[in-house]
Amino acid sequence: MVQLLVKESKDWIGIASSLLQELSSTAVERDLKAGIPDLEIQRLRESGLLPLVVPKAYGGADGTWIEALKVVQELSQADGSIGQLYGNHLNLTALGHVSGTPEQKERYYRETAQNNLFWANAINTRDTRLKISPEGEDFRVNGVKSFGTGIASADLRVFSAVQDGVEFPLLFVIPKDRSGVVSNQDWDNIGQRRTDSNTFTFHNVLVKKDEILGYPHPPDSAFSTFLGIIAQLTKTYVYLGIAQGAFTAAKQYTTTITKPWITSGVDSATKDPYIQHHYGELWTELQAAILLADQTAVKVQQAWEKDVKLTTEERGEVAIAVFSAKAFATKAGLNITNRIFEVMGTRSTGTKYGFDRYWRDLRTFTLHDPIDYKFKDIGNWVLNQEFPLITQYS
Amino acid sequence: MVQLLVKESKDWIGIASSLLQELSSTAVERDLKAGIPDLEIQRLRESGLLPLVVPKAYGGADGTWIEALKVVQELSQADGSIGQLYGNHLNLTALGHVSGTPEQKERYYRETAQNNLFWANAINTRDTRLKISPEGEDFRVNGVKSFGTGIASADLRVFSAVQDGVEFPLLFVIPKDRSGVVSNQDWDNIGQRRTDSNTFTFHNVLVKKDEILGYPHPPDSAFSTFLGIIAQLTKTYVYLGIAQGAFTAAKQYTTTITKPWITSGVDSATKDPYIQHHYGELWTELQAAILLADQTAVKVQQAWEKDVKLTTEERGEVAIAVFSAKAFATKAGLNITNRIFEVMGTRSTGTKYGFDRYWRDLRTFTLHDPIDYKFKDIGNWVLNQEFPLITQYS
Amino acid sequence: MVQLLVKESKDWIGIASSLLQELSSTAVERDLKAGIPDLEIQRLRESGLLPLVVPKAYGGADGTWIEALKVVQELSQADGSIGQLYGNHLNLTALGHVSGTPEQKERYYRETAQNNLFWANAINTRDTRLKISPEGEDFRVNGVKSFGTGIASADLRVFSAVQDGVEFPLLFVIPKDRSGVVSNQDWDNIGQRRTDSNTFTFHNVLVKKDEILGYPHPPDSAFSTFLGIIAQLTKTYVYLGIAQGAFTAAKQYTTTITKPWITSGVDSATKDPYIQHHYGELWTELQAAILLADQTAVKVQQAWEKDVKLTTEERGEVAIAVFSAKAFATKAGLNITNRIFEVMGTRSTGTKYGFDRYWRDLRTFTLHDPIDYKFKDIGNWVLNQEFPLITQYS
Amino acid sequence: MVQLLVKESKDWIGIASSLLQELSSTAVERDLKAGIPDLEIQRLRESGLLPLVVPKAYGGADGTWIEALKVVQELSQADGSIGQLYGNHLNLTALGHVSGTPEQKERYYRETAQNNLFWANAINTRDTRLKISPEGEDFRVNGVKSFGTGIASADLRVFSAVQDGVEFPLLFVIPKDRSGVVSNQDWDNIGQRRTDSNTFTFHNVLVKKDEILGYPHPPDSAFSTFLGIIAQLTKTYVYLGIAQGAFTAAKQYTTTITKPWITSGVDSATKDPYIQHHYGELWTELQAAILLADQTAVKVQQAWEKDVKLTTEERGEVAIAVFSAKAFATKAGLNITNRIFEVMGTRSTGTKYGFDRYWRDLRTFTLHDPIDYKFKDIGNWVLNQEFPLITQYS
Repeated sequence: MVQLLVKESKDWIGIASSLLQELSSTAVERDLKAGIPDLEIQRLRESGLLPLVVPKAYGGADGTWIEALKVVQELSQADGSIGQLYGNHLNLTALGHVSGTPEQKERYYRETAQNNLFWANAINTRDTRLKISPEGEDFRVNGVKSFGTGIASADLRVFSAVQDGVEFPLLFVIPKDRSGVVSNQDWDNIGQRRTDSNTFTFHNVLVKKDEILGYPHPPDSAFSTFLGIIAQLTKTYVYLGIAQGAFTAAKQYTTTITKPWITSGVDSATKDPYIQHHYGELWTELQAAILLADQTAVKVQQAWEKDVKLTTEERGEVAIAVFSAKAFATKAGLNITNRIFEVMGTRSTGTKYGFDRYWRDLRTFTLHDPIDYKFKDIGNWVLNQEFPLITQYS
Repeated sequence: MVQLLVKESKDWIGIASSLLQELSSTAVERDLKAGIPDLEIQRLRESGLLPLVVPKAYGGADGTWIEALKVVQELSQADGSIGQLYGNHLNLTALGHVSGTPEQKERYYRETAQNNLFWANAINTRDTRLKISPEGEDFRVNGVKSFGTGIASADLRVFSAVQDGVEFPLLFVIPKDRSGVVSNQDWDNIGQRRTDSNTFTFHNVLVKKDEILGYPHPPDSAFSTFLGIIAQLTKTYVYLGIAQGAFTAAKQYTTTITKPWITSGVDSATKDPYIQHHYGELWTELQAAILLADQTAVKVQQAWEKDVKLTTEERGEVAIAVFSAKAFATKAGLNITNRIFEVMGTRSTGTKYGFDRYWRDLRTFTLHDPIDYKFKDIGNWVLNQEFPLITQYS
Repeated sequence: MVQLLVKESKDWIGIASSLLQELSSTAVERDLKAGIPDLEIQRLRESGLLPLVVPKAYGGADGTWIEALKVVQELSQADGSIGQLYGNHLNLTALGHVSGTPEQKERYYRETAQNNLFWANAINTRDTRLKISPEGEDFRVNGVKSFGTGIASADLRVFSAVQDGVEFPLLFVIPKDRSGVVSNQDWDNIGQRRTDSNTFTFHNVLVKKDEILGYPHPPDSAFSTFLGIIAQLTKTYVYLGIAQGAFTAAKQYTTTITKPWITSGVDSATKDPYIQHHYGELWTELQAAILLADQTAVKVQQAWEKDVKLTTEERGEVAIAVFSAKAFATKAGLNITNRIFEVMGTRSTGTKYGFDRYWRDLRTFTLHDPIDYKFKDIGNWVLNQEFPLITQYS
Repeated sequence: MVQLLVKESKDWIGIASSLLQELSSTAVERDLKAGIPDLEIQRLRESGLLPLVVPKAYGGADGTWIEALKVVQELSQADGSIGQLYGNHLNLTALGHVSGTPEQKERYYRETAQNNLFWANAINTRDTRLKISPEGEDFRVNGVKSFGTGIASADLRVFSAVQDGVEFPLLFVIPKDRSGVVSNQDWDNIGQRRTDSNTFTFHNVLVKKDEILGYPHPPDSAFSTFLGIIAQLTKTYVYLGIAQGAFTAAKQYTTTITKPWITSGVDSATKDPYIQHHYGELWTELQAAILLADQTAVKVQQAWEKDVKLTTEERGEVAIAVFSAKAFATKAGLNITNRIFEVMGTRSTGTKYGFDRYWRDLRTFTLHDPIDYKFKDIGNWVLNQEFPLITQYS
């Protein structure tokens, strides 16, 4: 690890590609058994990718979001679960910076880099069952919280909880060894099966005063909610990776296994006019989706570098670009992961190939928040120059 | 059984509906464990549905294809596997009639009705590994044959095998107790998991002379290949049932579990403008698909009643209608089984609901033969008044 | 005319087909010059089609809506404008029956049959500029009214106007020779150019007491607003006719003029795999659209025959079927009229062929009311069992 | 003109924008009357845009293809015809460079810049009716040639003709005053109406030896056919401009004229959930289309700068990117120009607005060569690593 960080211009994509190769070989098996992604996180830890967006000043790899998101895409080709886990982690390493106090920014960046820490969270604000209440200078937390993606394996764990009489939920960060947090091991979903997104029950869990996030300085800048926008684009790159993984796997299958159709008049499936046409369409759609995201990543990085000087208008414009990239990737990805079977043929449905996991992963993860409202927000901006209401999803 | 058959105007759809209710409750569990559908076939046997298309003259229920296919649709709502098994069975009970000698027609109709027999087959002509050779008056069969849907549970089993020096493969019917037919228990696919569509290995299996199908009288009528067209429409009704099952399940979920989106401004998901719009589109598409099939079933029945007087032109026109219904149902069904998640939301991806099985079943079964060539055949007929080349799929 | 009506089981579709042939030959030219459709209406008058839905008791042809709508479809193949004019006329001949007093029902049915009258209207309730006020026993009307489709040529003209202090607009029927109604001759739109849908200005126009429609008996039955639903389906048949006309014209062109593409490897455009595929898709979509409408026409006719016994629930269910047919026909029709060019090729854009008129006509007429709200209404019914709010469009 | 060229870093897009504003105001009227685009070409001449891609060494503006194509897009927003005329012109100014002798490259670049010349062509190789035959040292041309876009107004005119016994057609460049070339003034098509794409008849027209194009040095480089690829991308930018023009016009209309739907529950059409959603989708699709093209323009420019060192493989890869951009822009553009009416409403079909011209222009120009074969070529490359066969269209 240490060694990895000394060289500044590291080829992070290359590292991710190696990891992609390695993880692809066991992806079908891991999808099948689901469970805790300890192996995957261990390999991420060893790869040096954990402190990728931690600034150099804090001992990090100083990567841009542009690079970081391409790493997310690369990893997601092997396995959408690891893409989601790593993407969440990247976002959370910047949480102190965006939504914390200056001290928290410094502490979390530095600890992440020094100790090569892995982050995870459960902060879905629609689930209000986790309650926090003051106890002396500190706090106690009780209740349950769902969608704790990767929490079981994480060194630092972020949760949101509601406090009586306080309008907005509180975010806090606690270490892995904090007692009273129990996984209900109830994650069993059709996709993103290795994200271990369990419900967690809190039994009078201690949260120290300085573990509560906030307030950034200044507290109400457009930047203080910008991580939500980055998170939306991070998901987009997971979608793209899954779609790309599906496309690559299908191509490999068609060129080696698929037999020409009996009335096609050609001697190879790769010469079938309809199979070629499908590949032409899917490839084109995939390129368009990747380009929309890549262009948006540049805008995100530019906004990021403005830090607290980011204006509400600038934030809004980036949000629109992100929504557009996300909605497009969702539609393109679902189309690709569904249609690959048509260019592979009947036998490609064998469970041993696991080709359905691309659709199951994408179908599951793209439900995170509805794209209809993304299109609506874009249209509202086009017509009325109004920016999206700021929520956890926008 | 006997009792069931005395009443001629039996409500077969009603019986299928009861079975649908019963089988729905265990569908998720059965999908998960796959395996041999003995329970399902037993229930079909008890229901009286097995001799549905056997003419009254032979002791059968004398149902039309119009009724029979609606039963296939009804059962497929619960479970695409049972729909496929039952649909195949229905087609095969008429095999002697269409492609056999007059004696075979009589024998198989009568035995099916008298003994309440269940049929299955493995006759994919693209798989040429099963070899038949004469031995005295009879034959011996060796080799392997894939896609033996339901064979393990069937009373009568139909296979195709190739004989040296003979252009067309031979079809034969052998009873369950014929020795030497071994299931390789290798069916493990992403969908239609309870069809038990294994590969079978033949160890010098005896086939008696009169178990070889053919020749119908006259041997080269358009009717002699008409079962292939009926089989294409039968698959279509399985697709429709799966799509309808998905729609109904989603509606149940949306109206009881789905929460309104945070920026929707409505207090119930069922009032969300986009969710309503999706349901409007999916419902419309489903109606159109069902109508196309139902109208085609009438044409199939009319053609059926012409028996050997069916002309090549009449067969061709029905084929075009069937292709159109099949291709449309494929597209509509894939759209529905994919999009239902968007009207249910994130939590609908829980494995316990098993909502992905609709897509997995349909995705798997619609690959039987490519719809691109169905559209091509239709277009060729529109432009050139040419009927589809007669193959196993057309 | 008289002669035409004596034979009851007239082949109305056949008559419409003859008219279709005749009108097709001048359709491009008439589209170009737009103007008053006097010729077309004259030919309709001579054909005997005007009193098609007038009951036999009043001297009419006693056709069902099922027949009548197929006639609309047939005529619309030649020219969407004449389809719209004739469809409107058919609806209006029943206006007295549905929304008038028993006397008006009798009078308008009888006059239509006896005098072979042509009807037209301008009753868009979103346009509230036409004012009616009492004058003695009668009324005077002033102001303007838009979308007066065919009014200039009509024997009987229906308008809606608003009266101070009265919640709902009043409908009235006035004869052609009533003075003070002036066409502004301002209809110049991209499609349906021969409908002559001008704005009309009223200069103190007299409307007699008994020319005001209403009230039916009973006044508030579900049937009293049922003509709106029939009108929606009538439009649907115009859409279908236009789409079918486009398909037929394209097929004629492709089979006689289109050259094979240079890299297609085939010697005729009709053998091109993509052109065949397009035709297969378009044909299938067209069949589905026609079937949805035809099945709905049966429901409309059944509801029609219930007359004032029609319940709100029955009306609602028919409305849902009609919306579904209309929305589907809209989408299919736009797809067909747009894509025909891809199967014809570059030179098919010559103005002399006028192939764009199909898209222009359909694009124009399908904007009558937005299909998004049709899908919404269907979805609301699926999810909440609520019937569409009753408006002029539902 | 001279003045315009002295400043090297001219804001060409800005100049195009001014021209766009000016030409927009008369676009509807010009579309209606079609005819010779003398006014438009005159304005292009005055703008300094004619020698945009002529290198500085020859007195040109030295613009890249990246800039030049954005100018094409900008102009096409006003009017697809002018976009096509100008795009063709740009391509042709480089014809000597790519497909001519070194002397021709020099001569045509220099003359274009010095004399501010406008180019046009009729080189469709599928039309083989124009014959060339040697006469002494020179040649004589007779016959007809179609699709002579802008020829009537051009200073330099490029044609292709076939010579007996010569495999490939010859290209030649003749000045406006060369006698014997007669326009048949027969261009009357539904779109691109102001391109004046007539058929021309040649009456024993003299073509001098050095007016025949070729051969480049080396004669068989991948570069020598590269102009065809640039031409495909140039068309793509015309499509994008038309689509963007349609989007902008629709937005202007919706925000100022469209009334909210009666059951929408909102007080402004711009707040309608479906209208917003449509705009969100269309905007997203438009962005994706523009990005695909812009990224491809960079690749084209990079390939361009390799000049005759461009390898066949590099040419092929750029061709694939161009096909992808072109096919995507075609689909997105047709969707946008068709659907804008749904977000504007019924009255937007008034001829005075001319909103149908966007669809008519795009529909016409996208038929230039079928996108099905573009998708096929892309798929063939994905699956078989084969590059498109080199034709006039690839």
